[in-house]
Amino acid sequence: MSELSWNRYGKSRIRLVKVRRPAPDDRGGRHEVADLTVDVQLEGAFAPVYIDGDNQGCLATDTMKNTVYAFARHDPLDKVEPFVIRLAAHFAAKPLVEGVRISVAEHRWEPIPVGGQPHPHAFAQPGGEQWITVVTHDASGSRIASGLTNLVVLKTADSAFAGFPRDQLTTLPETGDRVLATSITASWTYGFDAVPAETAEQSFLGAPAVTGGYDFSSARERIRRALLETFAAHDSRSVQHTLYAMGDAALAACADILDVTLTLPNRHHLLVDLAPFGLDNPNMVFVPTDQPFGLIEATIRR
Amino acid sequence: MSELSWNRYGKSRIRLVKVRRPAPDDRGGRHEVADLTVDVQLEGAFAPVYIDGDNQGCLATDTMKNTVYAFARHDPLDKVEPFVIRLAAHFAAKPLVEGVRISVAEHRWEPIPVGGQPHPHAFAQPGGEQWITVVTHDASGSRIASGLTNLVVLKTADSAFAGFPRDQLTTLPETGDRVLATSITASWTYGFDAVPAETAEQSFLGAPAVTGGYDFSSARERIRRALLETFAAHDSRSVQHTLYAMGDAALAACADILDVTLTLPNRHHLLVDLAPFGLDNPNMVFVPTDQPFGLIEATIRR
Amino acid sequence: MSELSWNRYGKSRIRLVKVRRPAPDDRGGRHEVADLTVDVQLEGAFAPVYIDGDNQGCLATDTMKNTVYAFARHDPLDKVEPFVIRLAAHFAAKPLVEGVRISVAEHRWEPIPVGGQPHPHAFAQPGGEQWITVVTHDASGSRIASGLTNLVVLKTADSAFAGFPRDQLTTLPETGDRVLATSITASWTYGFDAVPAETAEQSFLGAPAVTGGYDFSSARERIRRALLETFAAHDSRSVQHTLYAMGDAALAACADILDVTLTLPNRHHLLVDLAPFGLDNPNMVFVPTDQPFGLIEATIRR
Amino acid sequence: MSELSWNRYGKSRIRLVKVRRPAPDDRGGRHEVADLTVDVQLEGAFAPVYIDGDNQGCLATDTMKNTVYAFARHDPLDKVEPFVIRLAAHFAAKPLVEGVRISVAEHRWEPIPVGGQPHPHAFAQPGGEQWITVVTHDASGSRIASGLTNLVVLKTADSAFAGFPRDQLTTLPETGDRVLATSITASWTYGFDAVPAETAEQSFLGAPAVTGGYDFSSARERIRRALLETFAAHDSRSVQHTLYAMGDAALAACADILDVTLTLPNRHHLLVDLAPFGLDNPNMVFVPTDQPFGLIEATIRR
Repeated sequence: MSELSWNRYGKSRIRLVKVRRPAPDDRGGRHEVADLTVDVQLEGAFAPVYIDGDNQGCLATDTMKNTVYAFARHDPLDKVEPFVIRLAAHFAAKPLVEGVRISVAEHRWEPIPVGGQPHPHAFAQPGGEQWITVVTHDASGSRIASGLTNLVVLKTADSAFAGFPRDQLTTLPETGDRVLATSITASWTYGFDAVPAETAEQSFLGAPAVTGGYDFSSARERIRRALLETFAAHDSRSVQHTLYAMGDAALAACADILDVTLTLPNRHHLLVDLAPFGLDNPNMVFVPTDQPFGLIEATIRR
Repeated sequence: MSELSWNRYGKSRIRLVKVRRPAPDDRGGRHEVADLTVDVQLEGAFAPVYIDGDNQGCLATDTMKNTVYAFARHDPLDKVEPFVIRLAAHFAAKPLVEGVRISVAEHRWEPIPVGGQPHPHAFAQPGGEQWITVVTHDASGSRIASGLTNLVVLKTADSAFAGFPRDQLTTLPETGDRVLATSITASWTYGFDAVPAETAEQSFLGAPAVTGGYDFSSARERIRRALLETFAAHDSRSVQHTLYAMGDAALAACADILDVTLTLPNRHHLLVDLAPFGLDNPNMVFVPTDQPFGLIEATIRR
Repeated sequence: MSELSWNRYGKSRIRLVKVRRPAPDDRGGRHEVADLTVDVQLEGAFAPVYIDGDNQGCLATDTMKNTVYAFARHDPLDKVEPFVIRLAAHFAAKPLVEGVRISVAEHRWEPIPVGGQPHPHAFAQPGGEQWITVVTHDASGSRIASGLTNLVVLKTADSAFAGFPRDQLTTLPETGDRVLATSITASWTYGFDAVPAETAEQSFLGAPAVTGGYDFSSARERIRRALLETFAAHDSRSVQHTLYAMGDAALAACADILDVTLTLPNRHHLLVDLAPFGLDNPNMVFVPTDQPFGLIEATIRR
Repeated sequence: MSELSWNRYGKSRIRLVKVRRPAPDDRGGRHEVADLTVDVQLEGAFAPVYIDGDNQGCLATDTMKNTVYAFARHDPLDKVEPFVIRLAAHFAAKPLVEGVRISVAEHRWEPIPVGGQPHPHAFAQPGGEQWITVVTHDASGSRIASGLTNLVVLKTADSAFAGFPRDQLTTLPETGDRVLATSITASWTYGFDAVPAETAEQSFLGAPAVTGGYDFSSARERIRRALLETFAAHDSRSVQHTLYAMGDAALAACADILDVTLTLPNRHHLLVDLAPFGLDNPNMVFVPTDQPFGLIEATIRR
C-alpha cells in the first residue's frame, strides 16, 4: 500500500470586506474598509481521511470559511496581523493539526477626495485605471471620444435599493443601507470634429498637423472629478439612479462634450449571515462577489 | 436637465450547471451536464428609474438570476436555444421592457473514457491541459519530474462528504450525493537521474547527448489514464479520499516513479434553493463557484 | 552590511513552437508540433553581481533565451524530457552555477479530423471552446443567433502572405510558407424567428412552450465541421482569404442560416533568427506571440 | 457565391512606451512617460482580398504597427488625442479605406515621491498593489511575515547592464542607459513570534487575545518607502544590483525584521528599430513586453 508522505488542505480565496463604522450619532464620521482575501491551510495527522475515507478528524473547509467571518465580526481588524495570529491559534488547537499557515492579501482603498478633503465613506482603487481615446474617421467626418475605464470605487453609506417590483421569483429583500461598489467605465464624445491648430507643426509623411489648443487633459480631469465626487455624494436609490447623476454632472463639468456613456457593473457585497454563530452583523461583514454581477449602462445627452 | 438617450441593464455571468439524471432504477444510466453562463439584458422605458430613483418598474437583477434557475429546473435543457427563447419571452412580457437580449455560453464536457467506453457520470474538459517537465541539476545529481496541470474533471455521482466534526462554527450539511469538480495537477518523480542513452547522438556546444530509450510519453499516458479512471470510478467520501486513490493508482500504473504529488482544488457546486419558488431541486440545478475553493494537496509515495 | 542569504535568477516564459516537418519529397507527410513555455532558473555564487554590481559572472537572461532556441533547433524534440536534461547540463557547466531548475509546460495540439482522418498539418486545441447562443426579442420580433468561440487552431503548411502593398513604413517580408494560428469565433443567424413546436410542452409561469423540432445541435455540428475542415484544407493567401472560405463553407453546410460572422485574431508565429549562432532555421523554430495581433472580422451572407 | 457583407481588419494591442526626456544639459530635468496600447481597425473596399486572395490593396497589419511607432517618434505625444487624430488621417488616405477606427488605452504612471518631492525619472502604478500577511504556526512556534506584491514601478534613467559574459549564444548588446521596469513583491519576517499584548481584549471562542502594541502599519510604511526610494535613486548596474540595495535599505528602515525576500520580474522594454524608416531613436520609443521576462529573486539578511 502506498504511503501518504505529505499532506495539506484548507480553504483558499475566502473574500471578506469589513466595514468599521463610526458611532451611530457621529453622522459625518469616517468609515474604514478592510478588504481581504484569506487562505487557510492545515497540515497534520490526517492519514485516515485520505486512506480510509474516515472524516471524523477532517474539519470541513466550509467551517474554516465560517470561522474567518465569525472572527472578522469579533476582531476590530484595525490591523491585519493580530487578526491572522488569532485565527492561526484557533486552528492550531484543533485535533490532528500540526501546522497552520494563513495567508492574507489586503486590497487597498483610498478615500475619494471631495473638495480637497477625504470623503468619509467613499473610496477608490485608482491604480488600474486606464484612459481611453477613440478616433473614428470616415466619409462623414471624424469623431473624437475620450474616456476612462477600470476606475474602481466603493461606498459604504448613502446607497439603498427598495421599492422594486416583486413577482413570484423575487426573493431579494429591500435595503436602505448597502455597500455599493463598481468599476467605472465612461466615454464622452466631443462636439467638434477637427481641433483648431494653434501651433504650426512639421508634418510627417504628409499627415496634417493637428495638435491644437484644445486642452483634452483638463477636460478629462474635470469630468473624472465630477464622476468621482458625484459617486461619493449621491444619495443612491439604485445604480441606475447614481449613473444618471454621474452623467449629468459630467455634462455640467465640460461644455464641449455632447454626451457621456457610463457602464457600471454592480459588484455585489453580500451581508454574511452570522446568526448561526450567535452573532449579529450590523452591516459590517460582507462577501464581495465577482459573479454574477448586475450591469447597468446608459448614455446621457445634453 | 440631461436626457437619458439610451439605457440597458441586467444580470451578467449567471453560472448554472444542470445535471440530467437517469431514472432512479437505471443505475448505470447516463448523466448529462449542461454548464452555462447566462447574461440577461433589458432595454425599455426605464427613465424614471434613472432620473427619479423610482424603482417601481425596475425588475431586480437578482430576480433575473432567480428566473434563470427556476426555468432551468423546469426546462429539459437538452437544447440551449429553446431554453433561451423561453427566457426571452418571459422577460419581454414584463412592464416597460422593449427589448431583451439573452446571451449564453455553454462550456463543453466530454465523458471520460474508461476501458474504452464513455463513463456514465464522469466528465472532462481536457483542452486546457498542459504537460509539465521539471529537471533540477545540482551537486547532488539531477532529478526528473513530469506531470500535468489544468486537467478539468467533474463527476455527478459517487461523491459524498459526511461524518466530519461539527463545532460551533460548522453549518455545512452532510451529503451523500454531491457534484465533485476539480482541476487536476499531478507531478511525479522518476527513480533514475540519468537516462541510459540508447542511441549515440551528435552533441551540441558540448552538451552531452542524453536522449535515451526511456519512453516518457508512455509513462505519462499510463499515469494520466490511471488518474482519470480512478477519479471516475472511485466511491468518494472526500476529495482527500479520492486524491489518495488517484495517487495510489498512478504509482501502480508506472513502476519507474517514486512518488506522485496531487493538487486538487474543490470547485464547489452549490445546490440552488428553489423552495421559495415552489420547486424542488433533486440534485439537478447547481451554481458552480470560483471562490472560495477547498484546496487539497498530498504526496503519495511507494 | 547585509548578507545575501539566498538567490536565484533566470528567464521565465520563453515561448517556443517547433515544427517537425516530413521529408521534402513526402508531400502528404505528417507535421508534428511541440509548443512549449520554458522557465530557466539558476542558483550559485552570484553575490558579486548583487552586492558589487559586478556582472562578469552574470550570464544574461537574454542568452538563456537564445540558448533555448538554439538547442530547440538542434534537438529532435520528439520528447521533452531529454531536451530539458540537455539544457540543464549546459547551464550547470557555466561558471558560478551551483543549481539549475528548468521547467517546461507543453501545450497540446491534436490533428484536426478531416473526412475521418487526422489532417497531416492542421491542429486544434478544442478544450477551451464555448458554444454561444444569443436570442434578441423586441417589437420587431425575435432573432436567434448561435455560434462558438475560443476554438484554437493552427496550420503549419498551405499558408502564405505576399503581394501586399509596400509603403515607406513596410518592412514585413513576403512569405510563401508560414504558420497560421488563430482562435475561431463564429456566429450565425437563423432564418426563422419562431421555432415550430413539435411537441406540446407544459408552460412555466405562462412562458410559451417553444421547444420545437429544429435540431440546433446538428446545425452547429455541421457548421463547426465545415469551419475546421476548411481551415485545414484551404490554400491560404491571407487570413482574410481563409476567413471568406470558411464562411462560405459554413453557409453551404446549413441551409437554415442567413449569414455567418467570423472573428479571427492572427496569432503571429515569428521565425527565430538563428544565424548569429551559425544555425539555419528552415521554418522550424518559432516564437508564438500574444501581442500585438492582427484581427480580421467579416460577415459572409448568402 | 456568398457575399462579403461587412469587413474590418487591423492590428490590436500595439504596445508603446514613449519617454520624453529633458534637454541633455538638464540633468535633474523631469522625464515623462506615455504608456499606450493602440488598436488600429480599417474598413473599406477589401472584397478582393477576401474573395480572390488578391493582396494588392491589403495594407499589412505589420505596417500598421510600424506606422504607430514611427508616428510616436515624430509626435510630441504630450497629448494622446492629436496623436491619434494624425494616425487616423494617415490611414484614411490609404487606397480602398473607407473607415478608420483607432482606439488607445493609456496606462497611468505617477512619479514616485522621494523626500516629499516627485522623482524626476522614477514612476509607480500603485493601484494594483496588495499587502500580504502570512502567519505560520506549528510545534516550533509561530512566525509572522508581512509584505506587499504587485507594486509596479519603472525608471527611465540610471539603469545599465554591461560587462556580462559573452558566449557563443550571446547577442544582447551592452547598454549604459535602459528603461528598468518591474513589479515588486517583497516579504519580510519579524524577529518576534508573539506580539506583546498591551491591551486586554475579550477572547473569542477561546482564542487568545493577541492584539498588541506593535505597529505593523508603521513598519510596512517605512519598508515600503525604503524600497521605492531606493529603486528610484539607485544607480543600477543590473536588476540584481538594485534588488540588493532595496533589501539592504528595507533592513535599515525597520530594526524588527530579520530578512527580506524580493522577487523582481524584469519587464523588458525593447528599443524600437526605426532606422528602416530613416528615423533615429535616442532612447525614446520602446515596446514593453510581457514575455519572456527575467526573474530575479533573493533573500537579504541582517
